[in-house]
Amino acid sequence: MSDGGSGLKHRSELQVRWGDQDAYQHVNNVAYAAYLQEARAEMLDAAGVRAKASARQGTFVVARLKVEYLRQLTFRPAPIAVTTWVSAMSPARITLRCEIAEPVDDGLGPYCRGLTVLVPYDLENDYPRRVSEAEKAALTHFLVPDPQ
Amino acid sequence: MSDGGSGLKHRSELQVRWGDQDAYQHVNNVAYAAYLQEARAEMLDAAGVRAKASARQGTFVVARLKVEYLRQLTFRPAPIAVTTWVSAMSPARITLRCEIAEPVDDGLGPYCRGLTVLVPYDLENDYPRRVSEAEKAALTHFLVPDPQ
Amino acid sequence: MSDGGSGLKHRSELQVRWGDQDAYQHVNNVAYAAYLQEARAEMLDAAGVRAKASARQGTFVVARLKVEYLRQLTFRPAPIAVTTWVSAMSPARITLRCEIAEPVDDGLGPYCRGLTVLVPYDLENDYPRRVSEAEKAALTHFLVPDPQ
Amino acid sequence: MSDGGSGLKHRSELQVRWGDQDAYQHVNNVAYAAYLQEARAEMLDAAGVRAKASARQGTFVVARLKVEYLRQLTFRPAPIAVTTWVSAMSPARITLRCEIAEPVDDGLGPYCRGLTVLVPYDLENDYPRRVSEAEKAALTHFLVPDPQ
Repeated sequence: MSDGGSGLKHRSELQVRWGDQDAYQHVNNVAYAAYLQEARAEMLDAAGVRAKASARQGTFVVARLKVEYLRQLTFRPAPIAVTTWVSAMSPARITLRCEIAEPVDDGLGPYCRGLTVLVPYDLENDYPRRVSEAEKAALTHFLVPDPQ
Repeated sequence: MSDGGSGLKHRSELQVRWGDQDAYQHVNNVAYAAYLQEARAEMLDAAGVRAKASARQGTFVVARLKVEYLRQLTFRPAPIAVTTWVSAMSPARITLRCEIAEPVDDGLGPYCRGLTVLVPYDLENDYPRRVSEAEKAALTHFLVPDPQ
Repeated sequence: MSDGGSGLKHRSELQVRWGDQDAYQHVNNVAYAAYLQEARAEMLDAAGVRAKASARQGTFVVARLKVEYLRQLTFRPAPIAVTTWVSAMSPARITLRCEIAEPVDDGLGPYCRGLTVLVPYDLENDYPRRVSEAEKAALTHFLVPDPQ
Repeated sequence: MSDGGSGLKHRSELQVRWGDQDAYQHVNNVAYAAYLQEARAEMLDAAGVRAKASARQGTFVVARLKVEYLRQLTFRPAPIAVTTWVSAMSPARITLRCEIAEPVDDGLGPYCRGLTVLVPYDLENDYPRRVSEAEKAALTHFLVPDPQ
């Protein structure tokens, strides 16, 4: 594609934990943010750019998070499907979009839509860094730019 | 005030837990969402509108969450100060704004700014409800409308 | 078997979450307790005795928990295998044993061994109850009594 | 004291989070394990032996955890009081005991009693280490040996 986008989105299947429920007996809003994080870690892994746990360099930190809650999610044995993709990239920011839905489309639309802005960050020196060429190439694999 | 705002913001002091840290050895982005939730529960309590845990009516659910991460937060014995206020209210939506900062201003600005949209929701009948007159009056106590 | 044991243990495969790690960059000890809980919920489901989320009767509460940590667990894409079984049953107590290990035996032994004592409890009336005949029959399905 | 015990126990006041509740609308059993961890971190800090977050040496890992749940804990604004002390020490193991109760004694006894065995561990080299003389001296401050 001329814009460098692959058109390919990353898909994770994540388990809902009984403990993700709150006193309202549905999945707590904070757990959705955890699901986005898990799916993001899987996507970065799949792209080959996630630093290992003990790394202090080559890491990304979250600069912004947006979650739109569209349907209540209740505990169930079946996993949820989380789709994650890169919607924009600049040397200092990577914007991810995300959708949580049923693994098999039930026609009721997604449970939530999310947006996460990652900033490449060098934890060792506590300083923002730039997206490397290798990271840019790797992340292009899951780049699906927002429609203009 | 002519717009019904009190000018008063609610302030919580929340403990940072060792377990809120992630493998990057700072407070995980998801924990900030948990802090917003705790501060919100305290503000709703202070306003007298939080339903008790077992209630299935008179409750609110989260429809939207936005978090801007401005500074990294690391584990420390001192609490963080979370300021929460109502920035807009309509019969079907309550918009809260939130700021996490040092309890004593250190001149470095807040750790994060958040926005939460609550929807009044009847869990018993699984249906959105309206903000009651009593809730509206109570929440006006912490209403600080966004500047135009 | 003469003691009513089936010899059958329940097996769950659980995802390790990136967020289960702590600042020591391994899975936090508290997360193991969460894994035991998830596996237990699955076993109670499989036996047909887990009350639904909104139930206030027919529930069990945890009276005792023991976890022996044998090997460190680090974040990885592969699930862990959690084996859960009933090791003892009386009208007022159900004792579960649990083991967390690799899904395919790596010869290094389990990551942890756990024991959970459940007490049948009526949350509605806030009072301990007795294991019903139906529950007893169902749980016998996963009964593997401790060797004498 | 002839046994080297100080008779002094460490006391933390910990906030109960709304999010510590589960679908049974009481504090989840896993959250008690988190409370024990937070109180332990505070005690190790107070004794001056807790390694900083980024340390890979001089750390302790949990080898065993036991929790007895005695009373249900429900969400409330008031903190809980967690008392933690060293009940036994050897070069390779530190045994901690713990009690969760009301900050002001209500005559109903503790919510829970816990026991945690810590093993001094060098995360850098992934190998058990020995309790240092300095650690031993520091931890003696909170040593209250079990009655014989």
